[in-house]
Amino acid sequence: MRLFAGCDLTLEASEPCPTVAMLRPRSGLAQWLASESYQFDPPVRPTEYVDTYGNLCQRFEIAPGPMRIRWSAIVETDEFIAVEPNAPATPVSDMPSDVLQFLLQSRYCPSDKMSEQAQQIAGHLPAGYAQVEAIRAWVHQHIAYRYGVSEATTDAMDTLEAGAGVCRDFSHIGISFCRALHIPARMVVGYLYQLDPMDLHAWFEAYIDGRWYTFDATQDQPRGGRIVVAYGRDAADVAFISNYAGLSTKSLTAWVQLDNGQPLF
Amino acid sequence: MRLFAGCDLTLEASEPCPTVAMLRPRSGLAQWLASESYQFDPPVRPTEYVDTYGNLCQRFEIAPGPMRIRWSAIVETDEFIAVEPNAPATPVSDMPSDVLQFLLQSRYCPSDKMSEQAQQIAGHLPAGYAQVEAIRAWVHQHIAYRYGVSEATTDAMDTLEAGAGVCRDFSHIGISFCRALHIPARMVVGYLYQLDPMDLHAWFEAYIDGRWYTFDATQDQPRGGRIVVAYGRDAADVAFISNYAGLSTKSLTAWVQLDNGQPLF
Amino acid sequence: MRLFAGCDLTLEASEPCPTVAMLRPRSGLAQWLASESYQFDPPVRPTEYVDTYGNLCQRFEIAPGPMRIRWSAIVETDEFIAVEPNAPATPVSDMPSDVLQFLLQSRYCPSDKMSEQAQQIAGHLPAGYAQVEAIRAWVHQHIAYRYGVSEATTDAMDTLEAGAGVCRDFSHIGISFCRALHIPARMVVGYLYQLDPMDLHAWFEAYIDGRWYTFDATQDQPRGGRIVVAYGRDAADVAFISNYAGLSTKSLTAWVQLDNGQPLF
Amino acid sequence: MRLFAGCDLTLEASEPCPTVAMLRPRSGLAQWLASESYQFDPPVRPTEYVDTYGNLCQRFEIAPGPMRIRWSAIVETDEFIAVEPNAPATPVSDMPSDVLQFLLQSRYCPSDKMSEQAQQIAGHLPAGYAQVEAIRAWVHQHIAYRYGVSEATTDAMDTLEAGAGVCRDFSHIGISFCRALHIPARMVVGYLYQLDPMDLHAWFEAYIDGRWYTFDATQDQPRGGRIVVAYGRDAADVAFISNYAGLSTKSLTAWVQLDNGQPLF
Repeated sequence: MRLFAGCDLTLEASEPCPTVAMLRPRSGLAQWLASESYQFDPPVRPTEYVDTYGNLCQRFEIAPGPMRIRWSAIVETDEFIAVEPNAPATPVSDMPSDVLQFLLQSRYCPSDKMSEQAQQIAGHLPAGYAQVEAIRAWVHQHIAYRYGVSEATTDAMDTLEAGAGVCRDFSHIGISFCRALHIPARMVVGYLYQLDPMDLHAWFEAYIDGRWYTFDATQDQPRGGRIVVAYGRDAADVAFISNYAGLSTKSLTAWVQLDNGQPLF
Repeated sequence: MRLFAGCDLTLEASEPCPTVAMLRPRSGLAQWLASESYQFDPPVRPTEYVDTYGNLCQRFEIAPGPMRIRWSAIVETDEFIAVEPNAPATPVSDMPSDVLQFLLQSRYCPSDKMSEQAQQIAGHLPAGYAQVEAIRAWVHQHIAYRYGVSEATTDAMDTLEAGAGVCRDFSHIGISFCRALHIPARMVVGYLYQLDPMDLHAWFEAYIDGRWYTFDATQDQPRGGRIVVAYGRDAADVAFISNYAGLSTKSLTAWVQLDNGQPLF
Repeated sequence: MRLFAGCDLTLEASEPCPTVAMLRPRSGLAQWLASESYQFDPPVRPTEYVDTYGNLCQRFEIAPGPMRIRWSAIVETDEFIAVEPNAPATPVSDMPSDVLQFLLQSRYCPSDKMSEQAQQIAGHLPAGYAQVEAIRAWVHQHIAYRYGVSEATTDAMDTLEAGAGVCRDFSHIGISFCRALHIPARMVVGYLYQLDPMDLHAWFEAYIDGRWYTFDATQDQPRGGRIVVAYGRDAADVAFISNYAGLSTKSLTAWVQLDNGQPLF
Repeated sequence: MRLFAGCDLTLEASEPCPTVAMLRPRSGLAQWLASESYQFDPPVRPTEYVDTYGNLCQRFEIAPGPMRIRWSAIVETDEFIAVEPNAPATPVSDMPSDVLQFLLQSRYCPSDKMSEQAQQIAGHLPAGYAQVEAIRAWVHQHIAYRYGVSEATTDAMDTLEAGAGVCRDFSHIGISFCRALHIPARMVVGYLYQLDPMDLHAWFEAYIDGRWYTFDATQDQPRGGRIVVAYGRDAADVAFISNYAGLSTKSLTAWVQLDNGQPLF
């Protein structure tokens, strides 16, 4: 399907502020950017680098005062995500080397503390997709979606205790439980068509039967229409904006629409 | 400066044709893509990978029949290129490891056969920028710019013998002489503002005094307004289109204009 | 200086156990391995990959029963580490892109929770080396070196509360405080000559004035004679042995000696 | 099988000479270095980097005068190489992205000039292993193994014309013909057990049916006992010693023996 997605945000710096943005998706196996616009007002000339996860990162400095950033694109992506209830776990010995890092505990996913509960939720199921789906469903049922409960320092254990959080927190729990069962799992941030209310979004992927599958504990059922902006071990790796001096967000609007199918050329 | 550049090409496949395109520049230190469009007709969903030089490569298969590809972008780039007549050569011992590969001979740059002539042209000059500029000027003066003399298999030695060639051939000679003097040099393909006649272009860069400098043996004087699409050891690495079955180019138009400065949002 | 270092460990697997070892240092800027031996009994044929930090990782499966691993090498390394009390902090804008990841919070270094205390300890000092040294000295003075206080899940906040830990815990606090001040810091595991009692060791490095400096909060004063085995964001990244099934350590001996200077050939 | 292999070479520099050595194999899928020694006399402290092919490269400067380098290792490697006469070609569309570079023409493998002859030799055979084996056999039959015919600048076309060459030249022809048929092929340098006369050796690999297969046009039949030191597009990428000032080789001895099976510890 062909989506027109974007975000428009206004930041305000209180002092010169070195900033790293992760707002630009990459064309890859999962999606194709047919057209894209990425504008700054006042204008800056960002540099761009690729981080260790393959994400595109834009570096620039924001001068004191407001900075408006507007990114948008027309993106070809899949209308449906793959669902394979019987897909078996990939044995650790068969995992590609670059997948192994997603077995490790991380800042917001202290999987080393969460083995027992992971076993309770999914230990009795066939190793693989069925376990991850059970984890996803458990999070969907047991954690309430509510703004204002979690903050920047909230990890998966904190959210379990609070019993509520947002997409980021849902993902952290799902990832942690997967890793506790030796299933590689990674954080994804991006856009989801028909997300309600519309916002930048987060979900997770698990490595099963030799490939990555998409899981989203905030949703009732499997849904495609996703645009991936960045992958990481958890939210620490994939902040949309990382700032290294005083910076505040004044406004943020995100959108995802079906593209209206204008002529190509 | 802000340029609107692009190309529109029509290919024709005689059979299903696996294809790799290098048509999309990267936002990096040298340039920033403010907006971009990359369309295929009939539509395909390319995948994209990064090659060992950091270039973006789009893979897709062309079905038998015509395929139109149109890429365009608004790009912020430098109006002037750096010129440092006294910049000294970087000693090999001080070169970053990833620069060393650009000292090696390659398909179209058999620098291992060209040391003697490189010495004659530039051996008497201070090691560094002055040598590369002397090489660039020598090529500009001694090689005629003429279409139809060279073909896909023509290397720098062939062009020296023929005494004529196009931008790609000029670059190959320049690169070869630099490497023969232990100055790293790499091929660049991309766009040049006010190139006459307008076309996709090629030039080279040399690593001097700790950074890359731009040289273009097809031009009278240093000129900015360049958009880099890809880097490589020589033309073998940076073909705009690499095809692995029967494919012919029916038409190709390229353009570079000053952006008309529409409102950002 | 020329050191003969190594370790001899015996593991015992209760079931077939996929394992990743990080026991092999890399020859790099800091050290040179003149000779090396890496043996397994019973024999296995590990494969080796390089992780995203550049560490060498050996993958293999341990059959049920005991596995003895013995690694040793003669390593050229520096007798002294660099000490530059006046080295200024590198502005974030000037940091190389691959250094930025070491500003991020991580599993055992929740620097996002530790800004206030970092400011109290070092906020009044000139930004840079002086701050990191103040942090190092603070940890050395306020945290007791004691085995058995910390365990695998202990993070820097836990150790601050406990007031005691081992080299790994000392490093986590130092790293966290540095990052809280926007100074990149990374975990190092390896060997230290004349460490008492001898063991595998851990310390940290901070990126200051364009390079990495070594800090070790377990020591009274700056000491060289270090062999780096692996770098990471924290202990989650650099476990000597990562196992993905039941595995226990039966014995571990480590040693570092001055090499006796036998004839080279 | 377990081999003890090594080389002992003496170089002589006429001036300070920046040098890159590729003498150290990597432990990987194909082989495991159980022990290794790498010594320089007079002593130097090389740094080491990994090139774009994954090869380990040692950088150092040789002072005027002699330099003796001795590398040796005990290496676990395969006694037999895989032979699959019916393995089908991998379609270009299914090749991993990092394999595509080995389809490109290169300095000593001008495959763009050699399509016609490649078709004559193997075009009538089923695409895949059978074609590469036909190429390998053709080279073995039509090119005489003779020292002194080729030199540093000799490419595959030159060797075809001369009708004679050494292992490096045999490999270049084999690689070129494979690429001309859209079969990825790469140069390998290393050691071969029972090579006669013993020397450093070169052969090639072709990517068929999703993996790399070993081919050696200098041999009568498939033979294992190989230690891979480096991979590249051709000899330009994998010189054992690359020097950037006056340097000559005074002596070189290489050896490969069955390891005598001493106790491991």
